[in-house]
Amino acid sequence: MKLSQTFAKTTKTAPGDEVSESAKLLIRAGYIYKEMAGVYDYLPLGMRTLDNIMQVIREEMNALGGQEVRMTALQPRDAWEKSGRWDDKVLDVWFKTKLNAGGELGFATTHEEAFTRMLKTYISSYKDLPLYVYQFQTKFRNELRAKSGIMRTREFMMKDLYSFSRTKEEHDAFYEKVAASYTKIFNRLGIGNDTFRTFASGGSFSKFSDEYQTLCEVGEDIIYLDREKNIAVNEEVYTDEILNELGLDKSKLEQHKAAEVGNIFTLGYKYSEPLELEFADEEGKRQKVFMGSYGIGPSRVMGVIAEKLSDEKGLVWPEEIAPYKYYLVAIGDKANEVAEELYNKAPEQIIFDDRKNARNGEKFADADLLGIPYRVVISDKTLAEDKVEIKKRTESDTKLLPLTEFIVKLGQK
Amino acid sequence: MKLSQTFAKTTKTAPGDEVSESAKLLIRAGYIYKEMAGVYDYLPLGMRTLDNIMQVIREEMNALGGQEVRMTALQPRDAWEKSGRWDDKVLDVWFKTKLNAGGELGFATTHEEAFTRMLKTYISSYKDLPLYVYQFQTKFRNELRAKSGIMRTREFMMKDLYSFSRTKEEHDAFYEKVAASYTKIFNRLGIGNDTFRTFASGGSFSKFSDEYQTLCEVGEDIIYLDREKNIAVNEEVYTDEILNELGLDKSKLEQHKAAEVGNIFTLGYKYSEPLELEFADEEGKRQKVFMGSYGIGPSRVMGVIAEKLSDEKGLVWPEEIAPYKYYLVAIGDKANEVAEELYNKAPEQIIFDDRKNARNGEKFADADLLGIPYRVVISDKTLAEDKVEIKKRTESDTKLLPLTEFIVKLGQK
Repeated sequence: MKLSQTFAKTTKTAPGDEVSESAKLLIRAGYIYKEMAGVYDYLPLGMRTLDNIMQVIREEMNALGGQEVRMTALQPRDAWEKSGRWDDKVLDVWFKTKLNAGGELGFATTHEEAFTRMLKTYISSYKDLPLYVYQFQTKFRNELRAKSGIMRTREFMMKDLYSFSRTKEEHDAFYEKVAASYTKIFNRLGIGNDTFRTFASGGSFSKFSDEYQTLCEVGEDIIYLDREKNIAVNEEVYTDEILNELGLDKSKLEQHKAAEVGNIFTLGYKYSEPLELEFADEEGKRQKVFMGSYGIGPSRVMGVIAEKLSDEKGLVWPEEIAPYKYYLVAIGDKANEVAEELYNKAPEQIIFDDRKNARNGEKFADADLLGIPYRVVISDKTLAEDKVEIKKRTESDTKLLPLTEFIVKLGQK
Repeated sequence: MKLSQTFAKTTKTAPGDEVSESAKLLIRAGYIYKEMAGVYDYLPLGMRTLDNIMQVIREEMNALGGQEVRMTALQPRDAWEKSGRWDDKVLDVWFKTKLNAGGELGFATTHEEAFTRMLKTYISSYKDLPLYVYQFQTKFRNELRAKSGIMRTREFMMKDLYSFSRTKEEHDAFYEKVAASYTKIFNRLGIGNDTFRTFASGGSFSKFSDEYQTLCEVGEDIIYLDREKNIAVNEEVYTDEILNELGLDKSKLEQHKAAEVGNIFTLGYKYSEPLELEFADEEGKRQKVFMGSYGIGPSRVMGVIAEKLSDEKGLVWPEEIAPYKYYLVAIGDKANEVAEELYNKAPEQIIFDDRKNARNGEKFADADLLGIPYRVVISDKTLAEDKVEIKKRTESDTKLLPLTEFIVKLGQK
């Protein structure tokens, strides 16, 4: 990307009504645009970052044997009435609307009913199971308050995976595989060290669910963390009885604010029973399908990363999700020609700050604000030695690297 | 993809309320699932096909210098009131909803207002123009009737590009570049021969708009086509006066049913005036931005292709958008081993029909129903000559191809 050709410039200020620090940074850096409270557009850099987060998750979902689909936001009322969740008193974040042709529709905030109903067409025998299906989809939540930037919004990207198993045992084994996958995902996304599997309240079919909570000062949850055991407990199940059951020592627990970045949930027959999702077992007997659901919010993850990893200079993106890997600045005419050549070798990896009207100081400041992992400077001085100057966003030292080595790096992607 | 591991099996029947032939085929082939009239989920094969269509369009939008973003479906009321389109009497396909925090929101069917308003933050000088921004986004339309499968739905994928120019002249030049790009896109999508640039009604700033109409028996439009001149006229502007103006001879025009797969539109100051999108020109004088909009509906395109190219055996996908290129069938144990090896070389290109319980006849029928461009059969007989049998979906002849040559093809992607 060449900065001279990009419309989403950095700005000195964010909208006055924006209270979230991460949202202010993302807006100032030209990653997102605020339509209204809790509703944000993704501009080119923001879209690339979000897509990179989604791609990491997608790869791990595919590795679990997940099959990707794309369900609709519009959902008819009947399936939700069967599960008892159409009522606003049961699910209070509905956006509902009227169909011109008659009747009421909902914009789904979650898709248990939709997947359960859809799979009635495709599941008939034990041979069709187990089955894992997921999607990335825009979800809508009619939040009363939305003050946390892209960490809690009214329209957001969600990855939701659903598992369909023959038995609880088969379900439990997959559930643990997803748990391991989630750990890997949060490591790849650069927040693994501060993200903890956390006991939270369960449902009829399981005493607990598992949340993935990232320590974060502006998070909305409170968790109690045993660092030695690498286990956390959500405030909602923080009782002496449960600590006892989990073998946790109250005196060793740290209290932290945290943001929920993922959750995994044993649904059991909660949806397969009312919606009658069944299969014939090996004896031909009808059995209910045992279900689980597994969510990660890519846009919330992006907000949490922006919130946690940023510093006083701006955003800091982990390499795997940064929209571009290098931020290239050329000082001098000859350097500019070389920079142009380098850029053309790998335009997908480089932001070339080719702005003619920007001072070098502004360019360096924007390199920091945008949070690109490596700043690369080419000047007549570095070129005299056939080198470039490279600096990591998270370090203050610069290093000189032979131009040929940098070109090899570009080739590696 | 291995068929034994795919949940979305082919079925003999489609839902009884489905009247669209293309939708019936897409449902039977496991590409889509019908949630309700005009609302369809995309299952793995359908999602891949739609994504391939989108990728072709994306490449051409980028080649035009388009910058990709992702706007929100939820839109606040104020921008739409300024443009006069909030009223249901002006725009009758709104889905509107209530915000729990108070106020009314719309689910946008189009994004002129949103783009115009967002760009007020980024456009200030003539140096910021011209500018081309686009998105792929789920749009919602509260259609009264929805009987054409994925050709007209209440929730669909749309590519919308918007141009922002300093002058009408600058706009006109870009408009023609988009027209050329659209021709290229429809060629790549395999419907170029039957898709015609069509004069349709314009607006305050241009007498005509241009539609791209694909000849199609179940299309909702009627066009009059001059094949020699490669020009068509939409029924809505089919008057003697206009034919005269366009230099068309009534007696040479063919009447056709057609489906609109794209449109390009000169907006002029229609949105920049009420929403005050302005720039300072070279003399520092405030000027309004001259706008254009350019749409293609990838999901409708998919429906039109399914409708037009299918035959009595099933779907037929052009190579560039087919979800997979090869449909692999193995006959015999040794052949099965070889097929497995081939599949592992290029799982992204191959549907391996590894079902143990399906007869060869069923496999061949499904290869046709799914519309995969090449059916590849390996048997002990073909292996005796180190060959595979290959058949194009659109031809009846089979050919023997040396195994090594097929492997080279797989490597080429």
